[in-house]
Amino acid sequence: MRADGRRRVVIVGASAAGLRCASRLARLRPGWQITVVEERKLFSVAACGLPYVLSGDIGAAASLQMTSDGALRDVAYFAAVKGVEVLSGRRASAVDAGAHLLTCEGPGPSRTVLEWDELVLATGAKARRLPGQPRHPRVRSFHTPEDLAPVHTALSKGEISRVVIVGAGLVGCELSEAFRALWGVDVTLLEAADAPLPNILDPEIGAVVAATLRRNGVNLRMNAAVGAITASDDRAEVTVGPERFAADLVLVAVGVEPEVDLARSAGVVLGRTGAISVDERLATSVPGVWAAGDCVEVRRIPGGEFAYLPFGSLANRQGRVLANVLAGRSDRFSGAVGAAAVKVFDLNVAATGLTRAEAEARRMQVRSAWVTAHDRAHYWPEAKEIVIHLLYETGARRVLGVQAVGEGEVTKRVDVATQLIARGADLADFAGLEQAYAPPFAPAIDPLAQAAFAAENQEEGIEACRPGEAVAGLRLLDVRHRGEREERPLPGSACGTPLEELRSALPPLDSGPWLAVCERGARSAEAVRLLRAAGGSASYLAGGLRLRALMGLEGAG
Amino acid sequence: MRADGRRRVVIVGASAAGLRCASRLARLRPGWQITVVEERKLFSVAACGLPYVLSGDIGAAASLQMTSDGALRDVAYFAAVKGVEVLSGRRASAVDAGAHLLTCEGPGPSRTVLEWDELVLATGAKARRLPGQPRHPRVRSFHTPEDLAPVHTALSKGEISRVVIVGAGLVGCELSEAFRALWGVDVTLLEAADAPLPNILDPEIGAVVAATLRRNGVNLRMNAAVGAITASDDRAEVTVGPERFAADLVLVAVGVEPEVDLARSAGVVLGRTGAISVDERLATSVPGVWAAGDCVEVRRIPGGEFAYLPFGSLANRQGRVLANVLAGRSDRFSGAVGAAAVKVFDLNVAATGLTRAEAEARRMQVRSAWVTAHDRAHYWPEAKEIVIHLLYETGARRVLGVQAVGEGEVTKRVDVATQLIARGADLADFAGLEQAYAPPFAPAIDPLAQAAFAAENQEEGIEACRPGEAVAGLRLLDVRHRGEREERPLPGSACGTPLEELRSALPPLDSGPWLAVCERGARSAEAVRLLRAAGGSASYLAGGLRLRALMGLEGAG
Repeated sequence: MRADGRRRVVIVGASAAGLRCASRLARLRPGWQITVVEERKLFSVAACGLPYVLSGDIGAAASLQMTSDGALRDVAYFAAVKGVEVLSGRRASAVDAGAHLLTCEGPGPSRTVLEWDELVLATGAKARRLPGQPRHPRVRSFHTPEDLAPVHTALSKGEISRVVIVGAGLVGCELSEAFRALWGVDVTLLEAADAPLPNILDPEIGAVVAATLRRNGVNLRMNAAVGAITASDDRAEVTVGPERFAADLVLVAVGVEPEVDLARSAGVVLGRTGAISVDERLATSVPGVWAAGDCVEVRRIPGGEFAYLPFGSLANRQGRVLANVLAGRSDRFSGAVGAAAVKVFDLNVAATGLTRAEAEARRMQVRSAWVTAHDRAHYWPEAKEIVIHLLYETGARRVLGVQAVGEGEVTKRVDVATQLIARGADLADFAGLEQAYAPPFAPAIDPLAQAAFAAENQEEGIEACRPGEAVAGLRLLDVRHRGEREERPLPGSACGTPLEELRSALPPLDSGPWLAVCERGARSAEAVRLLRAAGGSASYLAGGLRLRALMGLEGAG
Repeated sequence: MRADGRRRVVIVGASAAGLRCASRLARLRPGWQITVVEERKLFSVAACGLPYVLSGDIGAAASLQMTSDGALRDVAYFAAVKGVEVLSGRRASAVDAGAHLLTCEGPGPSRTVLEWDELVLATGAKARRLPGQPRHPRVRSFHTPEDLAPVHTALSKGEISRVVIVGAGLVGCELSEAFRALWGVDVTLLEAADAPLPNILDPEIGAVVAATLRRNGVNLRMNAAVGAITASDDRAEVTVGPERFAADLVLVAVGVEPEVDLARSAGVVLGRTGAISVDERLATSVPGVWAAGDCVEVRRIPGGEFAYLPFGSLANRQGRVLANVLAGRSDRFSGAVGAAAVKVFDLNVAATGLTRAEAEARRMQVRSAWVTAHDRAHYWPEAKEIVIHLLYETGARRVLGVQAVGEGEVTKRVDVATQLIARGADLADFAGLEQAYAPPFAPAIDPLAQAAFAAENQEEGIEACRPGEAVAGLRLLDVRHRGEREERPLPGSACGTPLEELRSALPPLDSGPWLAVCERGARSAEAVRLLRAAGGSASYLAGGLRLRALMGLEGAG
């Protein structure tokens, strides 16, 4: 502490976590000296908005650096409004944790050594690179504000007619839309997993995203293990097995990794994910050194294991918690459910909690339920169908994750689910959830509750068939109305009996097992109940034919 | 129980609670005999949709009686699909609880006596009538499907050019829009309270609804105590003090009251609200007699007192819980937060938990916080401003209620708040809430969290002035940019210093107390912090000038 009693807090990194922490701490402790060290000249840019500048949804990149009141968040702004000194253009290069010193390089050849009482590492993340990825203008990441201009300029000049995007994660999907929708570029999207967005979606919902990408002209290749990337003056090329994909530009969007060089220099312990390990106060292993944002790992709810979740909203929350902790309060950051959302063309996608793949990797006993349902009262003219995938633990019936997709309101359901999952809710909690109901906003029974009903039914023996599953050996029972069957006939042979007639005209029970199908799944689930009550063996197509159509699959088998 | 062991469940009322209970119980206990007695021939109609048939949003009233798959929910449907017998056109007139008999009148002069093992009262609610309200075709309620046709026909024939609606509750507001927007009818809306929707909104947010109604041409009169209603062959008239409002039609929309005649005949105890008192299993005071839906009172969360909340979504939930209970499960209906939503022209309105008036009536120590914020990233072109009013208990900082209004996504915030309030969340829980963030769906800091920040700031001495409060005696400090001040000048005199310049150019502190104002409230709250740190006395206008504009108020004072 300085002789005048002002505590000196040095924060490395002027992005969400660092600036939120700095601004809040300056409010809580106006007498302290808060300094933020930032390598870039351009900072406090809402990087989540960058793909939308490319897509034309956002007119000016500068708006990403502005407050909602139109003020530019630059050095002068933070000094005048927040009482925070931002030293931009200086790269924090070394920490002496014993002497409480931070060495910064720049601008130019200059070097500064800052003394601190508390050091906050908010160093963020950097784009992951592939092994052997060439450093070449035709092979780029798209992560920082600096990544925008060259791509935008090249597009504007008509220099890009073919692009290969490696990685169908959040950014890869957003970029596919940007290149395709505004610029009409020929887009090839390569994904190593068997569906897009594998970190947040299981393959059934991922297939809906895949179908949307393809319907919008994206050449999506899954299970595509990228081999070599090469680049020359006039083009770049990506190999996948024996195939070669040539392009004017290759964008590598295979995720980010924590920026931990400075943490290493400080002797801070890293976690198993490779990110900085912090406790609930966001303290690192080194006294006086704290960390927040995309450079730390957090406890995942549910499950409690540490995970790396580089989301801007979490960075903001952590920055605020850390400011409160540094100011002497008892705040804690206890973990994150991992809610995420992304728009892919006209499809809204949101997810929270664990995927089935993640839960199974933790050896949890889990099951999935799916429903296709209207996001508002079905008779409301603007109602849209959405699909919910609900993942739960068998036995305890605890809900582990929810994935939602559709042109309707999906983030509302995922935000509600996040609150419930964070508090350990089970299927009964979801089935009984309270919501603000009016026909323009929601159906009387929310799709989330409907998904819980489907899961409870499943636990009672009303078995569902996974929407994308092959159903060889099952006989199809189509319980839709005749009109629906004529309008959207199933390929192949099916027994057609409307649900309304099923009680009085059961199909031959010894010729099953039957797979009941309908448009959205609810009627075929009722059919299974009737068949079972009569002694038959049956399951139903989860999410119905609509879900299969959204997945780009024909018919039911 | 019958000799063959089938349990006989008789349910009175074929609306949400009764039919949900019947259908679910028939699924869980296919061997039981489930009978629903219903006075009306037309039943299972989504009554919440009726105003939207009038407004033209919904093309055909018949769609309100259909499933999302296009099946008509009539007697044959419930028999064939649900295994439930509906006896329509029979009025349940008397219960002999000792002998387990229910007497039904009709059709015509016929009378049926049903034996039951379990009796479920799902008798719903009826429109409240005003004292002395004439029974006349020109003076109507709008509650049942039968109320729709006469009004719709009269409108279609051009027979209604002036309407007086008594009561600016949910239905009154919806009807005002229906008459005004589609039919161009001259609408006078009379409300006894000092703002619309007094059961779910406090007056500040209510004022936004009032301004919206007025902007759309509704002649809204508040604090209007209706005296006499008279009707003749050619017109009707409503008096309010010395004033007379003539109309072709008077619609009385002063809420509903529980239908409890049958409950009384069964000897069932009613609660203080006048509705049937039930425990968490939905059992009444009489063994074997149960009740659910708009005829019961429920525990209110927070607070725990019994309240009458006649909402369709709660009726559905109760019907399901009761079916589970009757089937021998351990389900409980523990209460409701009271989430509600309504669309008023282009304004979306949603609320949950207690209003300030309700909390104060319970002698709770409460405070309010308001924010005006974007519902998505502010740079997203479709972002809309919404207003959040957050009510909390001082001391424990427990959140008691949330009200949200705006053209943007408000039900998402209220649904999230409902889950949190149901679980006793405090301001810190709201400040740290996790959400699915992406620019097209939400800002990085959700408006709900921002509201919690404002509340926490208030608890730290950053005092807000209520948005509608008179501010005589305070000096105005306008901290907006010069451009904003020129574009939307304040009437009267104000000291203008942009927030960015305030640190270096504080106004004279001894000439305060100051009221800081800005567009949405965030900057002026920062200004208060600066002024206080410098030893000045100041508060800020909560929700900013935008909220005042939404409330139909000019300027800041």
